[in-house]
Amino acid sequence: MPKFTHHIFICTNKRPPENPRGSCDETGLGQLQLLFKQELSKRGLKGAVRANKAGCLDQCEHGPTVVIYPEAIWYGGITPDDISEIVESHILNGIPVARLQLQDTCLNTASCAHKN
Amino acid sequence: MPKFTHHIFICTNKRPPENPRGSCDETGLGQLQLLFKQELSKRGLKGAVRANKAGCLDQCEHGPTVVIYPEAIWYGGITPDDISEIVESHILNGIPVARLQLQDTCLNTASCAHKN
Repeated sequence: MPKFTHHIFICTNKRPPENPRGSCDETGLGQLQLLFKQELSKRGLKGAVRANKAGCLDQCEHGPTVVIYPEAIWYGGITPDDISEIVESHILNGIPVARLQLQDTCLNTASCAHKN
Repeated sequence: MPKFTHHIFICTNKRPPENPRGSCDETGLGQLQLLFKQELSKRGLKGAVRANKAGCLDQCEHGPTVVIYPEAIWYGGITPDDISEIVESHILNGIPVARLQLQDTCLNTASCAHKN
């Protein structure tokens, strides 16, 4: 059988409320991952594309964070309202959602325009 | 800053002991992920390569499972003794560890040579 065409990793990290780095999954319920799963299923993509829970993806100041491989496209500040658009545009049509995408200059850096 | 050169996802899923699908992380301590982190740090790869906890990667019968992106190389049956070799061969020298690799015919399938 083929590998996943796309493998979506959704940060489900939860820190204590007082932690300054925040939490990608404040409720601890994995809601975003569940919604991605449901959206993939609705579009007939179950089995071909996987929505996976992930531990901390280390881009916390931009959370809730999602990364999609193998294309290595990063998204930040994802809300439930964004999921349908990501699946429609990125997964089905191959066009990453520019307004949600984290730029390379914001990845793996201690400081960027959003972190000051 | 650049993206991770390699992003290692280590399944840390834990099921009840009686579940026939088994657990990639029976102790629930995330030992494999921690050992990957330590190995990367020892080799000076911290920041460039990330060892990430992941929820179920859905290749349970081959667990403990690891997938490395962006190259989408899958490994199964990983033990602590394999970690140094994966980092040395795959991450540093670009040569996946063939003896541990899951073949495409074993991915995302209900039956393969290991599942009967």
